Amino acid sequence: MLPHYELMYETYGTLNADKSNAILICHALSGHHHVAGHYADDARNVGWWDNMVGPGKPIDTNRFFVVGLNNLGGCHGSTGPSSKDPRTGKPYGASFPVVTVEDWVETQARLADHLGIRCFAAVVGGSLGGMQAMQWALAYPDRVRHVLAIATAPHLTAQNIAFNDVARSAILTDPDFHGGDFYQHGVVPTRGLRLARMLGHITYLSDDAMADKFGRELRHGKLNFSYDIEFQIESYLRYQGDKFAAYFDANTYLLMTKALDYFDPARELDGDLNRAFAAARAKFLVVSFTTDWRFSPQRSREIVHALLHNKLDVSYAEISSQHGHDSFLMQDEQYFAVMRNYLDRVAAEGTSP
Amino acid sequence: MLPHYELMYETYGTLNADKSNAILICHALSGHHHVAGHYADDARNVGWWDNMVGPGKPIDTNRFFVVGLNNLGGCHGSTGPSSKDPRTGKPYGASFPVVTVEDWVETQARLADHLGIRCFAAVVGGSLGGMQAMQWALAYPDRVRHVLAIATAPHLTAQNIAFNDVARSAILTDPDFHGGDFYQHGVVPTRGLRLARMLGHITYLSDDAMADKFGRELRHGKLNFSYDIEFQIESYLRYQGDKFAAYFDANTYLLMTKALDYFDPARELDGDLNRAFAAARAKFLVVSFTTDWRFSPQRSREIVHALLHNKLDVSYAEISSQHGHDSFLMQDEQYFAVMRNYLDRVAAEGTSP
Repeated sequence: MLPHYELMYETYGTLNADKSNAILICHALSGHHHVAGHYADDARNVGWWDNMVGPGKPIDTNRFFVVGLNNLGGCHGSTGPSSKDPRTGKPYGASFPVVTVEDWVETQARLADHLGIRCFAAVVGGSLGGMQAMQWALAYPDRVRHVLAIATAPHLTAQNIAFNDVARSAILTDPDFHGGDFYQHGVVPTRGLRLARMLGHITYLSDDAMADKFGRELRHGKLNFSYDIEFQIESYLRYQGDKFAAYFDANTYLLMTKALDYFDPARELDGDLNRAFAAARAKFLVVSFTTDWRFSPQRSREIVHALLHNKLDVSYAEISSQHGHDSFLMQDEQYFAVMRNYLDRVAAEGTSP
Repeated sequence: MLPHYELMYETYGTLNADKSNAILICHALSGHHHVAGHYADDARNVGWWDNMVGPGKPIDTNRFFVVGLNNLGGCHGSTGPSSKDPRTGKPYGASFPVVTVEDWVETQARLADHLGIRCFAAVVGGSLGGMQAMQWALAYPDRVRHVLAIATAPHLTAQNIAFNDVARSAILTDPDFHGGDFYQHGVVPTRGLRLARMLGHITYLSDDAMADKFGRELRHGKLNFSYDIEFQIESYLRYQGDKFAAYFDANTYLLMTKALDYFDPARELDGDLNRAFAAARAKFLVVSFTTDWRFSPQRSREIVHALLHNKLDVSYAEISSQHGHDSFLMQDEQYFAVMRNYLDRVAAEGTSP
């Protein structure tokens, strides 16, 4: 239970008169509210999905009113573990509650109320964001017309959970974590967060993409036979880890991975995904990527089959892409054409006056 | 440079009169000299490849003289980072040199000299052990008649190196590592070693095997929404990590993963594996497992193609197995039949008086 919370959000484009052209973008593990464009005074801080969202782009802000938010528990302005608990004047830290995909959709619905949006034209998300998009169709079947669920899964596999658990263990066992209350100690569990990100990063990329980009290329042109960096891939991973650990909150990382683990709409239904989607009314676009081994196409097909079982309107695209799970964030002609064409249809049916 | 070194080894069976029936078993990352059977006073300490090696087993100690050793740099009796440096009286720690697959084969050849074995009937190994087996054919073409290279690769991919680097980073950044000289501080980098093993373990298993064995089974029958263990897979991984960290040496772990990274017989040959195998004279059995994503069948086929290019005698088996990389250690009817039949041939040709 939280005494109160704030959500940081951004909007792009103009809400039309009947408020029927709103699209909600749900972010994945490390995303936030700043989806597209840049600020007047900070041209380099470009939104995390700027290739997809903007004027004339597949999620076209000339015709859609796009809402991006930082989820509850985040570390980009919304109330999260690093925020001050008004009851104590100290950061929540370990006392911040575990939040779930279901909780996020609740808070997003309140944000929609606040913005006067009764029904989203579409809710869109990749990976953990796709889980939120699906949850919208289950929790608020009359408040979302289209769900775009990209590079996602109906629930994590044991292997997925295992990778998350290693990442979490790295943070939880970092001596600087202090049980989640590191803020008061003036330290940050940088080591753990860095390891978590390095590991995560491997699972976002495909084996092939890593081979193409790095192969066995050496960092210093020759082998030095030491425990320092030898290969470019090591240098790249450590750089990614350091960069991430310098700005992301360790408690938020734990919380986001837990939300991933917990999501399972069929949990109380003997694992029967068909029954889980029985309440859904939205139309769906499901997109997967051939080299995504974290959320493989097989997992998207499970979603598609459950939707078809419920006689829902579903389009499915399996995109040939080299880039593994990260494909959902990358510019790709086929992928973007699928998104653009689908959203043309959403615009045509939905934003009529 | 080491002032001297010792190797711990075990032998099984009897060396025949012309010393033509010797088989060397090379171990992988966490293996050692105790390959088969158990000691009179410790019935529970069964060798790591006891299902494969023993009387009447595929590597039949009734007809072969089998040699297992702990590699140089190990932590099971051979000289390694935890051994005392005779020059200082303290453990080598950080001053222990990085050793390579090539170095290991050199030391194994000296062990063969010591045992009076001029030529091995076969050198056998899985994973990192398979790299040593292949290196035997390159370094000592006239001292090995057969190479059995199982679940291995001609070199690591960028993804393989990346996983190793995360594991190493976990150890290197553990405050209890003390730059490798933790022995003098009376501590052990348990946290790092535990994380390294947890991560390694995921990559040894297949996604499917983990799904079958654990799925989303809960540890306590219900979700508790905390950062404690929720799923059985988490419990299993942490158990494996704790068990390993309690006995394995962190410096040895670093060294073994580095040996994996460095092995690349085509490194100085513009990556041309065909040229790398030009000196080989041995006959080869190459075995891979369908669900091994750490050393996939594709990597074994690269070896096979290079061997065939050099007109070498090569048998290749791609075994349908659920168990991922770990398959090479598991009892499987097809796999064991392949091994048994191949070794029948080795015995028939090699151990004639």
